[in-house]
Amino acid sequence: FSTNVHSKTLDKNKPCKRFVLYYHDILFNGTNTANATSAAATNSTNLGNFNFGKIVVFDDPMTKDDHLLSPPVARAQGFYFYDMKDEFNAWFSYTLIFNSTEHKGTINIMGADMIAEETRDLSVVGGTGDFFMTRGIATFRGETIQGFSYFRLRMDIKLYECY
Amino acid sequence: FSTNVHSKTLDKNKPCKRFVLYYHDILFNGTNTANATSAAATNSTNLGNFNFGKIVVFDDPMTKDDHLLSPPVARAQGFYFYDMKDEFNAWFSYTLIFNSTEHKGTINIMGADMIAEETRDLSVVGGTGDFFMTRGIATFRGETIQGFSYFRLRMDIKLYECY
Amino acid sequence: FSTNVHSKTLDKNKPCKRFVLYYHDILFNGTNTANATSAAATNSTNLGNFNFGKIVVFDDPMTKDDHLLSPPVARAQGFYFYDMKDEFNAWFSYTLIFNSTEHKGTINIMGADMIAEETRDLSVVGGTGDFFMTRGIATFRGETIQGFSYFRLRMDIKLYECY
Repeated sequence: FSTNVHSKTLDKNKPCKRFVLYYHDILFNGTNTANATSAAATNSTNLGNFNFGKIVVFDDPMTKDDHLLSPPVARAQGFYFYDMKDEFNAWFSYTLIFNSTEHKGTINIMGADMIAEETRDLSVVGGTGDFFMTRGIATFRGETIQGFSYFRLRMDIKLYECY
Repeated sequence: FSTNVHSKTLDKNKPCKRFVLYYHDILFNGTNTANATSAAATNSTNLGNFNFGKIVVFDDPMTKDDHLLSPPVARAQGFYFYDMKDEFNAWFSYTLIFNSTEHKGTINIMGADMIAEETRDLSVVGGTGDFFMTRGIATFRGETIQGFSYFRLRMDIKLYECY
Repeated sequence: FSTNVHSKTLDKNKPCKRFVLYYHDILFNGTNTANATSAAATNSTNLGNFNFGKIVVFDDPMTKDDHLLSPPVARAQGFYFYDMKDEFNAWFSYTLIFNSTEHKGTINIMGADMIAEETRDLSVVGGTGDFFMTRGIATFRGETIQGFSYFRLRMDIKLYECY
């Protein structure tokens, strides 16, 4: 006899930990080294007009409010790429790195960033340190896009496994 | 005293949800924009003759049967790359996106696609929406390879954590 | 009423399985095809002087001791990239593949490799075969770096969910 202890025991409305952070991405344009937080590792392909195949590596500041210049409380390190030929759509895999008196540890996240949706959910697939073995949901909301020079995402991190 | 509630409670033969979907990949060749579902973001390196280092970004249809032109029930968005110098072998990380009356939500998957094996298992590492917090196994089977223009994979998705 | 069965039930000091393996990476330089185990899929960007944006695909041997020429007990297939503009720092996502009499199966791992830290933790996000549905922590320690031709990482794999 075997049963699945994981069945139907989580309530989406009751994360064991939750916080909202803002992600700021300033793409390197060849001259803005001092300010840039990300750079395109590949060029777009010619499949459509929406950057299909452009892979961007980032080391972005995460802040508690939506101001780019607020003191970062974490870094987001990872990559995204564009993956649709008829609209802007992206896919992310990255790590939130906390190294402050408040939190030390990392949270690993991956999933589709369906830009056309007002909000979209990605998976928190693991964590370390203060976030040891955590899992959960990261809800993205696009806030500002300034061409390809700057964009900001609101990330609502809801953790449902806390140890 | 501490115990691990996760020990030995799952039966591989009793997923809480299971479905089979077919993944269709049509690589962009520079002229097939209308049909292409993926594109190479990088060229192959010169390490061996099996496309080592070629990274392909995709937005592929998923169908319930093995016909390319059947109505898609989901999209698979993500990437794969080739990673062996002496045979074709790949690695995948991607999201299944469901947006129908039947299912809304995503499933995130990653792992090695050992093409030489008849079947190979990847990890379902998370889910959102109808697949909130799921985990499981995605078993790949290669079905058809038409040079570099088209290939199809059977993906047998077995979920062992359902909420 | 809903409760979270996953709360506070794991002890970091009591993994259900643990092993240490050594990862050996020999980067392709254009001529060392016989020995190379990895290759750069992209060039570095010009953002800083620390290889920002360079993506390396690998199929590396894993050994039980720290000798490159010891018999591999697993392969590590996946990729890493450099992602900081003012120091060397990396990010990994990969699969450990076991195919021996001792173990058959895979372990999937992702996370930040903060090279400047003496040790750093990544997430084990899933597993297959003998490692069915596992989760845990992979602790990296850099051991040797010989320019860009060879480096070795000690990976201490601690699994906390074993089925």
